Amino acid sequence: MIDLRSDTLTRPTDAMREAMARAEVGDDVYGEDPTVAALEERVAGMFGHEAALFTPTGSMANVLAVASVVSPGEEVLCDSSAHIARAELGAHGAISGITMRTWTGERGQLDLAAIEAMYAPDMGPFFVRTAAVSVENTHNFAGGAVLPIEDLRALRSWAEANETKVHLDGARLWNAHVATGTPLADYGRVTDVLAVCLSKGLGAPIGSLMVGSADAIAEARVRRKRMGGGMRQVGVLAAAGAYALDHHVERLADDHANARLLGEALGLDPEDIDTNIVVVERPDAASFVERAAADGVRIAAVGPRTVRLVTHLDVSRPDAERAAAVLSRLAGR
Amino acid sequence: MIDLRSDTLTRPTDAMREAMARAEVGDDVYGEDPTVAALEERVAGMFGHEAALFTPTGSMANVLAVASVVSPGEEVLCDSSAHIARAELGAHGAISGITMRTWTGERGQLDLAAIEAMYAPDMGPFFVRTAAVSVENTHNFAGGAVLPIEDLRALRSWAEANETKVHLDGARLWNAHVATGTPLADYGRVTDVLAVCLSKGLGAPIGSLMVGSADAIAEARVRRKRMGGGMRQVGVLAAAGAYALDHHVERLADDHANARLLGEALGLDPEDIDTNIVVVERPDAASFVERAAADGVRIAAVGPRTVRLVTHLDVSRPDAERAAAVLSRLAGR
Amino acid sequence: MIDLRSDTLTRPTDAMREAMARAEVGDDVYGEDPTVAALEERVAGMFGHEAALFTPTGSMANVLAVASVVSPGEEVLCDSSAHIARAELGAHGAISGITMRTWTGERGQLDLAAIEAMYAPDMGPFFVRTAAVSVENTHNFAGGAVLPIEDLRALRSWAEANETKVHLDGARLWNAHVATGTPLADYGRVTDVLAVCLSKGLGAPIGSLMVGSADAIAEARVRRKRMGGGMRQVGVLAAAGAYALDHHVERLADDHANARLLGEALGLDPEDIDTNIVVVERPDAASFVERAAADGVRIAAVGPRTVRLVTHLDVSRPDAERAAAVLSRLAGR
Amino acid sequence: MIDLRSDTLTRPTDAMREAMARAEVGDDVYGEDPTVAALEERVAGMFGHEAALFTPTGSMANVLAVASVVSPGEEVLCDSSAHIARAELGAHGAISGITMRTWTGERGQLDLAAIEAMYAPDMGPFFVRTAAVSVENTHNFAGGAVLPIEDLRALRSWAEANETKVHLDGARLWNAHVATGTPLADYGRVTDVLAVCLSKGLGAPIGSLMVGSADAIAEARVRRKRMGGGMRQVGVLAAAGAYALDHHVERLADDHANARLLGEALGLDPEDIDTNIVVVERPDAASFVERAAADGVRIAAVGPRTVRLVTHLDVSRPDAERAAAVLSRLAGR
Repeated sequence: MIDLRSDTLTRPTDAMREAMARAEVGDDVYGEDPTVAALEERVAGMFGHEAALFTPTGSMANVLAVASVVSPGEEVLCDSSAHIARAELGAHGAISGITMRTWTGERGQLDLAAIEAMYAPDMGPFFVRTAAVSVENTHNFAGGAVLPIEDLRALRSWAEANETKVHLDGARLWNAHVATGTPLADYGRVTDVLAVCLSKGLGAPIGSLMVGSADAIAEARVRRKRMGGGMRQVGVLAAAGAYALDHHVERLADDHANARLLGEALGLDPEDIDTNIVVVERPDAASFVERAAADGVRIAAVGPRTVRLVTHLDVSRPDAERAAAVLSRLAGR
Repeated sequence: MIDLRSDTLTRPTDAMREAMARAEVGDDVYGEDPTVAALEERVAGMFGHEAALFTPTGSMANVLAVASVVSPGEEVLCDSSAHIARAELGAHGAISGITMRTWTGERGQLDLAAIEAMYAPDMGPFFVRTAAVSVENTHNFAGGAVLPIEDLRALRSWAEANETKVHLDGARLWNAHVATGTPLADYGRVTDVLAVCLSKGLGAPIGSLMVGSADAIAEARVRRKRMGGGMRQVGVLAAAGAYALDHHVERLADDHANARLLGEALGLDPEDIDTNIVVVERPDAASFVERAAADGVRIAAVGPRTVRLVTHLDVSRPDAERAAAVLSRLAGR
Repeated sequence: MIDLRSDTLTRPTDAMREAMARAEVGDDVYGEDPTVAALEERVAGMFGHEAALFTPTGSMANVLAVASVVSPGEEVLCDSSAHIARAELGAHGAISGITMRTWTGERGQLDLAAIEAMYAPDMGPFFVRTAAVSVENTHNFAGGAVLPIEDLRALRSWAEANETKVHLDGARLWNAHVATGTPLADYGRVTDVLAVCLSKGLGAPIGSLMVGSADAIAEARVRRKRMGGGMRQVGVLAAAGAYALDHHVERLADDHANARLLGEALGLDPEDIDTNIVVVERPDAASFVERAAADGVRIAAVGPRTVRLVTHLDVSRPDAERAAAVLSRLAGR
Repeated sequence: MIDLRSDTLTRPTDAMREAMARAEVGDDVYGEDPTVAALEERVAGMFGHEAALFTPTGSMANVLAVASVVSPGEEVLCDSSAHIARAELGAHGAISGITMRTWTGERGQLDLAAIEAMYAPDMGPFFVRTAAVSVENTHNFAGGAVLPIEDLRALRSWAEANETKVHLDGARLWNAHVATGTPLADYGRVTDVLAVCLSKGLGAPIGSLMVGSADAIAEARVRRKRMGGGMRQVGVLAAAGAYALDHHVERLADDHANARLLGEALGLDPEDIDTNIVVVERPDAASFVERAAADGVRIAAVGPRTVRLVTHLDVSRPDAERAAAVLSRLAGR
């Protein structure tokens, strides 16, 4: 079975497991786990931010990150198909007490005119204040689309002029970095706070990080404890993340090449496949998924007429070629 | 001074005060205030719904109404300039734990295509479910625009086919009713739950109502108490509301005519003035407001380049004519 | 029917209604209602505090007052039968995100030793910090018991030494004031924030106030709007409150005398009746209540073996005497 | 250095790390991790409950467990020094919207009379309903005290008669089980829902479980995702937990013997040391802690005059003997 449903499915490699088994650990609630401390410092440094905080999931990293720039009763603006809006079970409202308004960008792209039109400054005790704009790069539900760094820079300039913070949901920012060559520090420069994930394309079993100012991280550490994210000997997980950063970032280019191969097999323009996600419209999504599975290729229906494929660490080039053959045939090409 | 800042400014008339002074009252927390009970029954009946609940403000009526159809962690879709999104201080997130996504309609109008594109059915334990669509009629920040009943009927059909509820913020629904002649019951028919206000154009000093099913109202009664809205001898306020329903609905047509007069004075097409609100772009909003005040006309800047005027019970035809003359001159016409 | 179920049942007198009908009003959301502004200033002054805020209910005043001294994730300590713990539908947790721990005082009294034992200072990111102690005077569920001012002073001293705030639920503080002669300013001196009610023994139909520092009130004004308590022409209610303060405070002594009469009729020691509430244990509470009603006296069962009687503005001396005769007979005395 | 600050400090053993490195894993958000599924089934079975759910921390297990039996606006009763009240940063209020009232039991013991006195049935739309009683066994802040199973049975009988649920915070329930010989299933029988921890005395690096009915667990799975606890290849952690259950439960008896040794060294009656925690009053807690550290023994001040010692997997008998000698000398014995 070739499993293309999601890059969250990646399993830790033997070498990664070996790193976990050897990890030096301590009680991180006491601030005594050297492996997670080193990882946090390293990741903060990669983005030129002061500090970082390890979390059990990307959702928690996003909830903490957004809450660090938006208070209860304030709002964050984001794309209407953003992961924070659609796929975190409403935590930003239910746990953080935050409201959202959304624009709808073509392929998840920024729409600065829409943002400007929605923007609400602090106008006295009736109006919800726009505290932050959140962007997602790459954009999951827009098919792994990259947000160009120029657009993020334009957002940043606008935001600074309007006392608004910028949050970046970078669950797959590594993919954008590899696909475009944009240095990670450039993403750090255009954001106040961001979240990155180790357990999608990078292949770690568990773990994300919130990255931001030392003050924001100190506050988030308390909120993380309140949310039940204050784990103990976290080094066993952080070691996997550190291994992934050492060995699994550059290879994302292979996933991107594999995704283009699959896109082509499905009749898409390979230029439209930015990274490791392929989204294709099929009138018969459910049955298409079923037939692919019968031929040894697991893919996912993410809507009544939408199919999604994701390449990752556990999908080799031969796997991708075999899957492409199956899908091409099923697509009648 | 002619005060056109808002129709919330209306003061109770002598006859209304007289009705308040004569009101039979009881302790409504015990369910023993006959005047508020009669008003609730009357208003429910006007919309063909089972029950209604008196609240101290329109914000509370909206919070209770939306919470009756959207649970914590679920979402409501609405226009990006809806009152519930912009002007209730984030209560739907902060108090009810609800999330929102928004479309941006021309003049606050419905965009069913956008709603369909955003709509998220119940898709398992990742995704936020779309529980309701909220509409506002007339639409405050869109300049008192009326949503045509045909559009609401289309929304209703779509919603029923998609297990989605419809909430109507009807703070100024009376204006839409008078402007279009659409029977109130027709609005009731296209909604699961709605909120109406007695203290804007109708001129009561305090009071709104949530209107819906008997079950929803029973639940809202508990939530109202938790939110601090369980008042005692409410009859003194309900009497004002009943008086307003008897005497101040049909006369809203005068406010609409006055608003058209003011709109014309400011160079707008009177056809664009649907009801009692006039919104006009002025490069110099703040100074325009100041100069009008110096000439005895209070208006409001609701944005750096946006001025708003609202006609109401305390603005007579001669007042409107005088204000029109002042504004026309200031606008250099 | 003589109704002794609660002092919330009081109906506005003709003179009070007259005051309401004559009240000068404005839009209080704009800060333009002179009658409520005067009442807020007056009540703040009575307690020697900087500012006050009118609310539709005592519950909202308490929620705002406690939230002004306790942040989400912090705790307030109170008696286990406090109104804020038992009778506000969990708003302090559900709306404010606050936790509570409780002591159990004899007749609702302070237990400073228990408070000291529970007190938790700020001890790092595990522990809930004790931010405030809340007291209730008179104490509703403890039968209208007065908390001696000496005890409140001792609490205040302890609290100041321990960076803890004091909240006073003074829904019936007027009764304590009249029963003991303690000046209102003395209560102000021992508290950071307090709530008082106009619509219980004082007889106003609707209205309470939160009283505290100017900063706390400014913040509470925003929270009040978010909770749906930002009413418009509030002067019509504030006028009733002002009338009540002018005419209905001193006369609470009559209610207290009437309560003692009723207590005696039920075989209680009149010395145990501090103010206007009589709580008596009856093995047959429900049937006792029923038989009293059959004889024209409405009282309430507040537990399976507990009956409560409350005297108030609408219960005259002859009413009390008649009720005493009925109850004495029913109690077999 | 002999570290007696907490049993959360335990590091995974080599054999446990080996089990983690070999663990079969899958994506648990998709329900495809066989190792965590087996662990959940096994732990549910140990307590005779239908299902269990793995969480990153004991705090999250408790928050989910309490929320499964107490709705927003309802209350849970617990001891005033319960971990859920004092040491989870107010999550039950801030995240779940729940209120608490507390009794104060000698050494954290149950006080059924106090519970009965506080208990509030569903009494209409004013009163907070008592939905559950929460107990903690062993009781952390009461020095690892065991709650006798007879007391838990009595609570259970009372609770069933009063439509109240029982939650057990069993972070250290394994210690109570080993100390008393009470079968785990007996604890399951007296509870509706419980939380157990793998990363305290059992020595796993990360992981707790909520245990309860299949329905409660299904609902908690959604809430866990919302709180950011939906991790991916959880098998790497679950394998450590399974190893701990196989090898580290019975050996808790050694920790208990070591704790008695330490207690004796500090002049306590060994009969008062129920399990692996020793709490001792010292007028000079901070300096006592400092002097012990200078002699190679790390202990914790948990109050200005209170010192706590905890024995665990990483403290051998010779370690305990050496620590006892140091402490005995410092205590001047």
